[in-house]
Amino acid sequence: MYIIKIGGNVLDNPERLQRFLIDFAQLPGPKLLVHGGGKIASTIGLQLGIQPAYVEGRRLTDAETLKLVTMVYAGLINKNVVAQLQALGCNAIGMTGADANAIPATKRPVKTVDYGFAGDIAGPETINATAIRALLDAGLTPVFAPLTHDGQGSLLNTNADTIASVLATALAPYYKVQLVYCFEKKGVLSDAQDDDSVISAIDQNRYQELKEKGIVTDGMIPKLDNAFAALRQGVSAVLIGEAEGLPSLADSEAFSGTTITLRHA
Amino acid sequence: MYIIKIGGNVLDNPERLQRFLIDFAQLPGPKLLVHGGGKIASTIGLQLGIQPAYVEGRRLTDAETLKLVTMVYAGLINKNVVAQLQALGCNAIGMTGADANAIPATKRPVKTVDYGFAGDIAGPETINATAIRALLDAGLTPVFAPLTHDGQGSLLNTNADTIASVLATALAPYYKVQLVYCFEKKGVLSDAQDDDSVISAIDQNRYQELKEKGIVTDGMIPKLDNAFAALRQGVSAVLIGEAEGLPSLADSEAFSGTTITLRHA
Repeated sequence: MYIIKIGGNVLDNPERLQRFLIDFAQLPGPKLLVHGGGKIASTIGLQLGIQPAYVEGRRLTDAETLKLVTMVYAGLINKNVVAQLQALGCNAIGMTGADANAIPATKRPVKTVDYGFAGDIAGPETINATAIRALLDAGLTPVFAPLTHDGQGSLLNTNADTIASVLATALAPYYKVQLVYCFEKKGVLSDAQDDDSVISAIDQNRYQELKEKGIVTDGMIPKLDNAFAALRQGVSAVLIGEAEGLPSLADSEAFSGTTITLRHA
Repeated sequence: MYIIKIGGNVLDNPERLQRFLIDFAQLPGPKLLVHGGGKIASTIGLQLGIQPAYVEGRRLTDAETLKLVTMVYAGLINKNVVAQLQALGCNAIGMTGADANAIPATKRPVKTVDYGFAGDIAGPETINATAIRALLDAGLTPVFAPLTHDGQGSLLNTNADTIASVLATALAPYYKVQLVYCFEKKGVLSDAQDDDSVISAIDQNRYQELKEKGIVTDGMIPKLDNAFAALRQGVSAVLIGEAEGLPSLADSEAFSGTTITLRHA
């Protein structure tokens, strides 16, 4: 099965989103989509007088921001994606981690920073794989907004990359899972200034090398850490590339992004 | 099975909502919840500069209002109800009519008034009962926000009373369905000024009489028309009462609201 994560850059652009959803709808077999946030949450937040606050690039989720992301991620974005997929013949069902108790999480403990209503997922063993499999077995395509819940009545804001990787790992015992991160670049780049310098394959040794040389930095590190963790726990393949690369997924030779593997073949 | 509709007056009051959800979570057997809107949509709409517009008591849904209700109904209200039900041990899954293609509808044709993105449901035969039954069979409790979709990518704003009645009718061939409208009064009143003047039972003859005498008017007429239509199409029972009456549902003698029947026993 395919588990695809799309980021805000696709969601923010109606034409790109539409093209992506056409490609996604055509992927064969069981599949699942995880979407991120996008700029629209900040735009609507400003209209509502909610100032975004960040610490070290991570958004703080106070009570008002939690309401905002619940409205925008689980309402506006999620339901419009679902309605568009339905129009494309894909029987989508929009969810958060609270729905069907799919993704329980815990509020991030306050150490030096209080991230507010941010949710951490203990691990793939906490995912309600039974419920997600029941949906897939009924021919449905779950579409997840990046929210989880604490089991005590509160929603929690949770990183979409992490949700995708944990879901992939939790479903790996039941399906041959391909986890695909669609983002704004064509893949992991060897030269950040050159959009065409895609590294076609990265294994664990190469990853160490790329980190030591400072080629892989910042936001890419947690993404790749997540990817290797997923592979070590049974996910079949992890691919990173642009949303437009989706049609080539079925043919690994044709895929123009970065393939993550534990050990290079 | 129970299909319960709650209105905005319960949603607008956190303590009442919490009490209602405790009672709902305890109802035995398969169940389904349909919720309305509530004042919160208008409040947030005003913050976003969206002025509510009505014609003959019906809200006009322009493109901006559709975004607003998608955020508030399908996001804020629906997901918080789901998270609260999860905390109460009820395995809820929040939905709109777009999710699982549960409730297809058509945009209301423009005659004298353009209602905008308002959705009309052709009838119970258009409901995707198969998908809803798959969810119920998986032990899930669907929680519907009052939105449908046109199958062409657009969500549509749809009356929650109508959604509840059409779902009840569509599921009547598979379950013994009790349809319960929880609203702000204790039941249908014989004297609008006296909250305790509940009419305990109304059949079709009595309904004609109450309409002719002007005792049943305005908003209650579509509600009762919906109720009788549901009963004629196989729904076992339709009950109208306050949210606090939920625990007495299992014992029809104890129910303090109004019971709608085709013919008085």
